[in-house]
Amino acid sequence: MAPSTPRVVVKVDLKKKPWEQEQPLHNRWHPEIPSVAQVKAGEFFRVEMIDCMGGTVKDNSSSADIKHADLSMSHCLSGPIRVVDEEGVAAKPGDLLALEICNLGPLPGDEWGFTASFDRENGGGFLTDHFPCASKAIWYFEGIYAYSPQIPGVRFPGLTHPGIVGTAPSMELLRIWNERERQIEENGVKPFSLCEVVHQRPLANLPKAKGCLLGYIDKEAPEWERIAKEAARTLPGRENGGNCDIKNLSTGSKIYLPVFVEGANLSTGDMHFSQGDGEISFCGAIEMNGFLELKCDIIRNGMKEYLTPMGPTPLHVNPIFEIGPVEPRFSEWLVFEGISVDESGRQHYLDATVAYKRAVLNAIDYLYKFGYSKEQAYLLLSCCPCEGRISGIVDSPNAVATLAIPISIFDQDIRPKTRKVPSGPRIVRKPDVLKSTYDGKLPITKNLSCST
Amino acid sequence: MAPSTPRVVVKVDLKKKPWEQEQPLHNRWHPEIPSVAQVKAGEFFRVEMIDCMGGTVKDNSSSADIKHADLSMSHCLSGPIRVVDEEGVAAKPGDLLALEICNLGPLPGDEWGFTASFDRENGGGFLTDHFPCASKAIWYFEGIYAYSPQIPGVRFPGLTHPGIVGTAPSMELLRIWNERERQIEENGVKPFSLCEVVHQRPLANLPKAKGCLLGYIDKEAPEWERIAKEAARTLPGRENGGNCDIKNLSTGSKIYLPVFVEGANLSTGDMHFSQGDGEISFCGAIEMNGFLELKCDIIRNGMKEYLTPMGPTPLHVNPIFEIGPVEPRFSEWLVFEGISVDESGRQHYLDATVAYKRAVLNAIDYLYKFGYSKEQAYLLLSCCPCEGRISGIVDSPNAVATLAIPISIFDQDIRPKTRKVPSGPRIVRKPDVLKSTYDGKLPITKNLSCST
Amino acid sequence: MAPSTPRVVVKVDLKKKPWEQEQPLHNRWHPEIPSVAQVKAGEFFRVEMIDCMGGTVKDNSSSADIKHADLSMSHCLSGPIRVVDEEGVAAKPGDLLALEICNLGPLPGDEWGFTASFDRENGGGFLTDHFPCASKAIWYFEGIYAYSPQIPGVRFPGLTHPGIVGTAPSMELLRIWNERERQIEENGVKPFSLCEVVHQRPLANLPKAKGCLLGYIDKEAPEWERIAKEAARTLPGRENGGNCDIKNLSTGSKIYLPVFVEGANLSTGDMHFSQGDGEISFCGAIEMNGFLELKCDIIRNGMKEYLTPMGPTPLHVNPIFEIGPVEPRFSEWLVFEGISVDESGRQHYLDATVAYKRAVLNAIDYLYKFGYSKEQAYLLLSCCPCEGRISGIVDSPNAVATLAIPISIFDQDIRPKTRKVPSGPRIVRKPDVLKSTYDGKLPITKNLSCST
Amino acid sequence: MAPSTPRVVVKVDLKKKPWEQEQPLHNRWHPEIPSVAQVKAGEFFRVEMIDCMGGTVKDNSSSADIKHADLSMSHCLSGPIRVVDEEGVAAKPGDLLALEICNLGPLPGDEWGFTASFDRENGGGFLTDHFPCASKAIWYFEGIYAYSPQIPGVRFPGLTHPGIVGTAPSMELLRIWNERERQIEENGVKPFSLCEVVHQRPLANLPKAKGCLLGYIDKEAPEWERIAKEAARTLPGRENGGNCDIKNLSTGSKIYLPVFVEGANLSTGDMHFSQGDGEISFCGAIEMNGFLELKCDIIRNGMKEYLTPMGPTPLHVNPIFEIGPVEPRFSEWLVFEGISVDESGRQHYLDATVAYKRAVLNAIDYLYKFGYSKEQAYLLLSCCPCEGRISGIVDSPNAVATLAIPISIFDQDIRPKTRKVPSGPRIVRKPDVLKSTYDGKLPITKNLSCST
Repeated sequence: MAPSTPRVVVKVDLKKKPWEQEQPLHNRWHPEIPSVAQVKAGEFFRVEMIDCMGGTVKDNSSSADIKHADLSMSHCLSGPIRVVDEEGVAAKPGDLLALEICNLGPLPGDEWGFTASFDRENGGGFLTDHFPCASKAIWYFEGIYAYSPQIPGVRFPGLTHPGIVGTAPSMELLRIWNERERQIEENGVKPFSLCEVVHQRPLANLPKAKGCLLGYIDKEAPEWERIAKEAARTLPGRENGGNCDIKNLSTGSKIYLPVFVEGANLSTGDMHFSQGDGEISFCGAIEMNGFLELKCDIIRNGMKEYLTPMGPTPLHVNPIFEIGPVEPRFSEWLVFEGISVDESGRQHYLDATVAYKRAVLNAIDYLYKFGYSKEQAYLLLSCCPCEGRISGIVDSPNAVATLAIPISIFDQDIRPKTRKVPSGPRIVRKPDVLKSTYDGKLPITKNLSCST
Repeated sequence: MAPSTPRVVVKVDLKKKPWEQEQPLHNRWHPEIPSVAQVKAGEFFRVEMIDCMGGTVKDNSSSADIKHADLSMSHCLSGPIRVVDEEGVAAKPGDLLALEICNLGPLPGDEWGFTASFDRENGGGFLTDHFPCASKAIWYFEGIYAYSPQIPGVRFPGLTHPGIVGTAPSMELLRIWNERERQIEENGVKPFSLCEVVHQRPLANLPKAKGCLLGYIDKEAPEWERIAKEAARTLPGRENGGNCDIKNLSTGSKIYLPVFVEGANLSTGDMHFSQGDGEISFCGAIEMNGFLELKCDIIRNGMKEYLTPMGPTPLHVNPIFEIGPVEPRFSEWLVFEGISVDESGRQHYLDATVAYKRAVLNAIDYLYKFGYSKEQAYLLLSCCPCEGRISGIVDSPNAVATLAIPISIFDQDIRPKTRKVPSGPRIVRKPDVLKSTYDGKLPITKNLSCST
Repeated sequence: MAPSTPRVVVKVDLKKKPWEQEQPLHNRWHPEIPSVAQVKAGEFFRVEMIDCMGGTVKDNSSSADIKHADLSMSHCLSGPIRVVDEEGVAAKPGDLLALEICNLGPLPGDEWGFTASFDRENGGGFLTDHFPCASKAIWYFEGIYAYSPQIPGVRFPGLTHPGIVGTAPSMELLRIWNERERQIEENGVKPFSLCEVVHQRPLANLPKAKGCLLGYIDKEAPEWERIAKEAARTLPGRENGGNCDIKNLSTGSKIYLPVFVEGANLSTGDMHFSQGDGEISFCGAIEMNGFLELKCDIIRNGMKEYLTPMGPTPLHVNPIFEIGPVEPRFSEWLVFEGISVDESGRQHYLDATVAYKRAVLNAIDYLYKFGYSKEQAYLLLSCCPCEGRISGIVDSPNAVATLAIPISIFDQDIRPKTRKVPSGPRIVRKPDVLKSTYDGKLPITKNLSCST
Repeated sequence: MAPSTPRVVVKVDLKKKPWEQEQPLHNRWHPEIPSVAQVKAGEFFRVEMIDCMGGTVKDNSSSADIKHADLSMSHCLSGPIRVVDEEGVAAKPGDLLALEICNLGPLPGDEWGFTASFDRENGGGFLTDHFPCASKAIWYFEGIYAYSPQIPGVRFPGLTHPGIVGTAPSMELLRIWNERERQIEENGVKPFSLCEVVHQRPLANLPKAKGCLLGYIDKEAPEWERIAKEAARTLPGRENGGNCDIKNLSTGSKIYLPVFVEGANLSTGDMHFSQGDGEISFCGAIEMNGFLELKCDIIRNGMKEYLTPMGPTPLHVNPIFEIGPVEPRFSEWLVFEGISVDESGRQHYLDATVAYKRAVLNAIDYLYKFGYSKEQAYLLLSCCPCEGRISGIVDSPNAVATLAIPISIFDQDIRPKTRKVPSGPRIVRKPDVLKSTYDGKLPITKNLSCST
């Protein structure tokens, strides 16, 4: 009599490589990637996903897998899932897909994840000019809690969420993406002052056949090469949602996704046991294999009804969402401010990215005083449930951004005190994160006024 | 036997102009502005402040006062307040001032405020290219709640806070400020791509004798002109705190401010009954006259102990703070996403400012569908306790920013529903905000895909 | 143009005795007590109140004032306030008064309060058999925070609220009260097993002319004596609200009060800076003089519309309320359980009162191990924002009640730890609360298995 | 390299009866029940449990299974689990077991539960005099959410927890239990006035061989009968924890349990997907099969270190606990008050149980006005995450209790409004709960002033 348990519509086998899965995965966005499953509006279903690195990063004591990661393969997504209404009529372009995340978590028997920062010449991260080496920390899960042997002295409940939820783009939207992202690559660094502060590279990730997985479209198929050259990379979040890495898309949240192709073709992946706002170290959430239990409704004509496009076409929209009711609850926060003056002391104009970089750098140096290595702090602030806010965006020339860290995740009181930081025998948090060498030649940003 | 009631160390008389106050106000940062009062560590004291516009904006039915506002006079601060320890020894450069906000609010008998957006050629705002006209809404306070006759259908508890809390800069720090801000003005728009998207002007606000108030330094004094030409404008937040406009600096919060001059010379001002993250319309909080009740401690040598400078000098630091325990509590939020693609469809590189602009524009258009004018929505999102987050800052080329709006501030359910937005007789929220004409000639940004 | 500041409808003069106030106070419930002010629906108004002991308890170093308190005078209320609708028509019996608490606090210049436990033979308290002596602690307010010289090591934000909010009873309701409360006194201890565990006395407080204040009804008036003999004491909460001592009736809450007489005749008093659930030491909140800023609406015929009487008459109803949005927020709680087995080991049947007594006793003994005297812990748990819950009420024969204490109010970590309670030099919290001798002869409950 | 997934130490097979499970279950407390598994301090382990009725209540459309339930069989617990420290030394009497709930939930593939109220002559419930019929509602789970076909219009996230967590009693403690509970049965109703208001029966549940399951002690064993006659029933919570039904023992909470026998002998059971404070309808949580993932530490000598006995022996203690960080978060609550005057209008003395009964009755009648049947409201308030508080316990003669209901669980706005309850075509919530007839002859309590 009961409605059945969630129907598993995409299953993964962790013993197989991404391209060996029975239901094929895909790591590109393209309208022609065929759906692998179909769900009805109102149905309760389950999707399993492999981690963002497709299982190449191991629970071991080396960061070599990160250093040599093949980023062209990343984000093997589960799906696309075709959505139809209760009468069996597919979602149509212009509809809105109301997707509720009813449950999520790691896959049973696989309760671990990793946080990493790529080598500067192979992916980088928000602070790659300061931290050019690949580094890695392993996290083990005890139910809602995560702890890492490489970052002793912290343990916290995860704000678990999918890094990627998105619908397939239409051909028109795909072309818009490819065109605008190509321009940034072609024009290069010049007109983009942020490049001078944010050293992550490449500037964009354009379609590339290498590493491409197109689901049911076999590599031998005649259309494979065309599609592989057109299909958008999954790295950035875009109009279809995608890799938005919004930490609050957790249990109980409800996402309203625009529909661009018939059936909506929903894909998900890149599960995060936990992530801080910004996911600063790039591979910076606690990355894991995982599952989502979902329900969806179709709001017919909902794009027009609820979303106003902003840009040259009606496709220039963004998803909206409601936050769920069971996020971990913290009352006490220590907050770091940053302004849009960069590490060389140069003034930037209302630049929230620069301001946030400063706030993060301030927080890392602060935690260093409490015994953490800077690499430990960098990975920790990437993956713990910290909040990054745009506090002031109008007081020229300084944007003000803040980074709020929940105090209770530490086993010591990290608040400033009249009685000073504990000193004497330094309380170093050992061991450290796993680190590789940086073998490149790019200059590393040093804090000009800090001798350590 | 009781400790006395908070000692009033700065009092203001709302019937007088800023420059007529008995204890003189100041609207510049300079180490030589003499302190107007002294407090001891541990003492509980009270500071009164006039609003950011110095009483020139009135509770009337015109926005002319906003259109013609004299911004060179803005931010008349109360202070500086010299801080000494329990033995009477002054705070010293290198100390940290731990300032607790024990209470705050509007001045009794003056329970109202205003939210405004300046004319594009006289101050502007985050969206001034979309909203070039000066506009204004009046808010009345009923205890913790605010409501506006110009924005019917919303009422909310304020997250009240001072827009400005700061210590005086040393001469060295002041020179750093003036130098770096001068460069942005001199180099102009060229290397700063953000200028093409964020049209607020001027790029920076350099020292200027016009409108300058220097506290106890009389205009006739020999040093007045020199100092007036050196003294930093109060608009941006900087290393000393200052106009950070951080909405969470509310009751119960504790701010750790670096000390640059003997006595710390604390100043405060720009009280906000409420503000959303970003304060987007610029004069965008609910601006009011108000008071702070404060306590402070001196953490000797605390700058070195707790803050790591980041930049060419040891002065390149930022304040940190703890959030207080009585912020208004909201459980349900509707969240708007934005990516770093601007209104023309152009791609920007990991630019959180552009992404936030998109998120705000998306939210304004959404609320428009529920009966608010776009100007109402613009002012509302400036001043209600909404949260602006940097969600993803590493997924090149798109930064993702989110704007979360508490659902319960509205008298209607603004969530998307299968049963659509209420239509038929349009529920327009009348009257509208007070508006002036825009008489300038700068091009106005139009949403290319929106006919309204 | 602005709506005026809240109109002060009841003002008190702290330099005068309760019976000397210009607008007379009252300390009984009776329909014939004349209103002292009138407000309109929608109007924003302010009421000032003296503390529950009428100013007889002083900020000094003796608890003699508590030991010899005259309880017949307690709860001098401000009001009654007659409520009319926008057309001037009075609230009518059967209506519902929707009362919003927009703001509240101590009276300016009088920022202190006290928490006390009465002598066992003069009022007692929930644990009077354990703590027969009168005791007192003084609290000083620093904005939202309170601290006490007599209970060092704690400081907390108050959940400020009126202990008493109520409408006047009709004559019929008054008779019901007097009749049922008389029975408990006349029947005495016999059929009430709780009397054997809860030793507070008297069992009820019947009408009594001594100490009676009837507002505008002068003591010389012919009806004074009749009314004084009929008028209900204010101690218990009843159908009209009254002394419910609900800590959550704080800023932003909205109370729906039944109307029993024309004009509603609203009265308020007994302001609490803070209180724990149960207000266990009886004079157990942080008692203070204070003010309320209120708005009210009349829901015509709302009693019938929303409240179902439960009992022999349509008057047997209770108020309902909504909780406000700015309660102090605590994330971490240490919780004590109690079951309905009393201190002698005797079993009671599903008795939540006995279970709660056990939970409180457990908590007091626990805090004692951390250096607090038991009297300090007793007064602290009376007034800090702790939560008392009925967890299980069906598992015969044991009710289970819990007492949750916010961990962050202490300056030490009070959680159990593998590495034990700090010992060696005992950290005693000195000085202690102010205490009087108990000169009576009633047996004191001793913990049978505790030698201290 | 990773710590293994939680080790499953107790597994249940839902296709088998309780007495057929491979690892035997037990439904009594006795020191001689042998442990079925052993765990080490610090180990992460998993326990599976069957529901409180041992699988006899089905997901069907009849409440006959509830009406004829065999309560002598209820609470088949998983365990006992012997706990040893890292060196293999068992927990000892006098230690404290620090048990952390890291995760919990329904068993995969079995995502449903039920809420029920027993027949008045077979178990009853808190309001059995008002609701003498057996009734039942089925709940289906969609991840964190539950909904019931029998109670349309509500859906809520569960605050999932075990109803029972406890350690084995020592022989001495067991004798104390049996003695004190026997007295309540033998003395009967007379001295217990609460019996006249709380009609649930029997008064206590004494040891009884019928239905007894003793784990590894086989029914044929010589000691079986002796132990069966001594072993305590599991219904009430007691010094060892046990059936406390505390809704806040959810994910992330940490319970400190006294140890009475070597090895601690921890048992758990009675999983609840959700429960309101009081669990008023008795079988009143959302009862389900489920699992716990746990960690425990031994605090050596912790009973003496942290718990003060209160009663004639050192065994008279109670557990304490810390609340976890991921409880569902609700901001808006509608709260019902109750005072200790019963439905006949009779006054009781500071009786929190009576006051809570009134609050619950008030809430049920209120919800009835919004279209729910009273039985629907009764079961809903049993199992939704509502809060029952002891607000005032000193204002003789009235205790004040409150019941706070989260507003957002309803699909309609249940707050009182000037514009009245929606009327006209009554919005009845159909279908209703499953109900049986009441065939007994006990008088049913009728609301004297309510004709419906």
